[in-house]
Amino acid sequence: MIKTDILIIGAGPTGLFAVFEAGLLQLKCHLIDALPQAGGQCAEIYPKKPIYDIPGFPEVLAGDLVDNLMEQIKPFQPGFTLGERAETIEKLEDGTFIVTTNKGTKHQAPIVAIAGGLGSFEPRKPLLDNIEKFEDKGINYFIKDPEVYRNKKVVIAGGGDSALDWSIFLADVASEVSLVHRRNEFRGALDSVEKVQKLKNEGKINLITPAEIVSLNGNGVLQSVNILKTAEVQEQIELEVDHFIPLFGLSPKLGPIGDWGLEIEKNAIKVNTFDYQTNIPGIYAIGDVNTYPGKLKLILCGFHEATLMCQSAFQRIFPDKKYVMKYTTVGGVTGFDGSKKEAEKAVIKSID
Amino acid sequence: MIKTDILIIGAGPTGLFAVFEAGLLQLKCHLIDALPQAGGQCAEIYPKKPIYDIPGFPEVLAGDLVDNLMEQIKPFQPGFTLGERAETIEKLEDGTFIVTTNKGTKHQAPIVAIAGGLGSFEPRKPLLDNIEKFEDKGINYFIKDPEVYRNKKVVIAGGGDSALDWSIFLADVASEVSLVHRRNEFRGALDSVEKVQKLKNEGKINLITPAEIVSLNGNGVLQSVNILKTAEVQEQIELEVDHFIPLFGLSPKLGPIGDWGLEIEKNAIKVNTFDYQTNIPGIYAIGDVNTYPGKLKLILCGFHEATLMCQSAFQRIFPDKKYVMKYTTVGGVTGFDGSKKEAEKAVIKSID
Ligand SMILES: Cc1cc2nc3c(=O)[nH]c(=O)nc-3n(C[C@H](O)[C@H](O)[C@H](O)COP(=O)(O)OP(=O)(O)OC[C@H]3O[C@@H](n4cnc5c(N)ncnc54)[C@H](O)[C@@H]3O)c2cc1C
Ligand SMILES: Cc1cc2nc3c(=O)[nH]c(=O)nc-3n(C[C@H](O)[C@H](O)[C@H](O)COP(=O)(O)OP(=O)(O)OC[C@H]3O[C@@H](n4cnc5c(N)ncnc54)[C@H](O)[C@@H]3O)c2cc1C
Repeated sequence: MIKTDILIIGAGPTGLFAVFEAGLLQLKCHLIDALPQAGGQCAEIYPKKPIYDIPGFPEVLAGDLVDNLMEQIKPFQPGFTLGERAETIEKLEDGTFIVTTNKGTKHQAPIVAIAGGLGSFEPRKPLLDNIEKFEDKGINYFIKDPEVYRNKKVVIAGGGDSALDWSIFLADVASEVSLVHRRNEFRGALDSVEKVQKLKNEGKINLITPAEIVSLNGNGVLQSVNILKTAEVQEQIELEVDHFIPLFGLSPKLGPIGDWGLEIEKNAIKVNTFDYQTNIPGIYAIGDVNTYPGKLKLILCGFHEATLMCQSAFQRIFPDKKYVMKYTTVGGVTGFDGSKKEAEKAVIKSID
Repeated sequence: MIKTDILIIGAGPTGLFAVFEAGLLQLKCHLIDALPQAGGQCAEIYPKKPIYDIPGFPEVLAGDLVDNLMEQIKPFQPGFTLGERAETIEKLEDGTFIVTTNKGTKHQAPIVAIAGGLGSFEPRKPLLDNIEKFEDKGINYFIKDPEVYRNKKVVIAGGGDSALDWSIFLADVASEVSLVHRRNEFRGALDSVEKVQKLKNEGKINLITPAEIVSLNGNGVLQSVNILKTAEVQEQIELEVDHFIPLFGLSPKLGPIGDWGLEIEKNAIKVNTFDYQTNIPGIYAIGDVNTYPGKLKLILCGFHEATLMCQSAFQRIFPDKKYVMKYTTVGGVTGFDGSKKEAEKAVIKSID
């Protein structure tokens, strides 16, 4: 059982910044995310794209924003349960909550902050018989650790940025990279398309287009895929592979959280604008996942919501303590790791 | 008459960021501030101190944050009326407002956003007879343009960072810098105190402590000040000067805005949490100056409030237009200066 003060569901920018604001109040946080990495939409959908409306950044790449947030929260040592989806919630008699993931990991906390964005990111799976049988036995929808593919035969399917970028990356790692796409045209950054063209010309990427993977073979683990080439003359080939990585994008699903008894409106969780608490006391919703009059699904709004929410959580956990807010400039930042950042203090010193 | 879409009173971080959000909606802004420079508390009180709770910045100097915001809003070419206090407001029949400053400058806009922080920063003035007579005729409470003091005789009074820092700066500009303080001890950054000690030792700053300026002499313009040295043996001297700069700090005063018919609570303006509008339609209050349940006087909250406020202002100005929010990453930023920032577009390109 993982225990913490505030259990945050969703490690997007909102959830990450909540760790910082909680830390200022000396509250510890643990985050659960269905994705294998922190950063939510910024990290998963557009890490290399610039954002222009983060206050104080005339321009910042979404991935860099996430890196900055990770650096900012480091002193508060958040825990992470990654690659798992929060599935069920249960309220104990002592008022604390138990949240269990699809893989059975249990977390306990007096406060739950849902920062689930548009929902848990679930891969779009190709419609293939017996695909579930090979999941994690040759088929991966996410690349968690590229080393898994070292000197392996890999086939990637897809026509967008993820398929292009991972093909490029794995060309140097795997013994063989095949890229299968149902058209000749790819959609992505010009730079990526050109790099794949170059690697294809050099024989480092085996391009199979237009084509589709139509069936999977293997005994316990994946051994080969059948590919239907759909050019004028159709032809089916069998390709021996160790791994098949379908990269057809992710679709966010509010999913199980929709059944937690929370008031839902427009596929989002209704909260008040005082502290962004839901209809269940102790459960808050912040960032893209919530809705209230005037709501904008912007990163900077999630930051504000996370901040107000943490103040309220503190009051719930310590109903008798009076918290007096101190500016970070004045009070500094005291990490759980013993670190201390603070402004240089003024001295009182005579000049003579 | 200065005309604009949104007239912002207060050029602190909140007012500055409002310019950006308004700009995304193609609305123009003009800012009024009592201080001679933009940046509010950040620029005036603690420009060289680090802030740790701006999301995405593990640490940023308050002055740098202001510089970044100025850079971010540059494409939207805001107008500034600096060094003037917004004094009166009047609503015309067509629903627009006229705001007049203490110096008589008039501004007209359909929307007024009060981002006045803790209030208009007013200098603490020493209690000296006829001091008003010499204001701007030798006496300055702010240093707008240091060149004014080139080769002039200057006396600075005060014992804090401003007095120290300006003495250091002007030691290279003025022909003579005297620093008068009623104690021997100064309170400021160690570095500044040490630099003043060094400049004093080198004869570049004329230190007069413990002492007080007790009267002012001059005919139309300031010609000399009388200084009472308050060491064991009291002694009065007359010092010839061109300029006297009393730097005894600033105190913010809600001031005239308090009489505009706005609902005030705890010295702040009451707003709703839907769009941060006040009890007078068309007048909004954002940042430190407003209050609502859960309010925190933090910079990041001002950013959020400014953003929601601009959406509402857009609806008021264009009641018939349906605004569809576009992410900056997707829509880019189109400046009024013809500039365009945007993410590199994806291409659709065949690989063969
Ligand atoms: C292409 C694009 C461009 C954008 N540009 C901008 C922009 O310029 N400016 C701007 O402000 N915003 C922009 N946005 C929106 C911005 O990315 C979102 O507002 C922001 O990511 C929301 O942050 P969040 O932390 O609330 O949620 P998310 O970033 O969506 O993160 C939520 C996380 O929660 C996880 N999760 C959800 N449910 C569960 C569960 N049950 N179990 C485990 N994990 C779960 C998800 O996997 C996800 O990682 C853009 C979005 C896109 C797609
Ligand atoms: C030492 C110190 C440390 C701080 N540390 C932090 C921190 O770590 N994190 C954080 O989030 N916040 C911190 N703050 C608070 C932060 O600076 C404020 O929240 C922020 O400046 C508020 O921004 P604002 O734009 O709303 O108002 P302000 O910055 O106060 O700006 C308001 C401006 O409006 C002008 N104005 C007001 N009335 C009028 C008028 N009638 N006519 C013309 N001009 C007018 C004023 O002159 C002023 O320049 C700190 C503050 C101080 C003093």
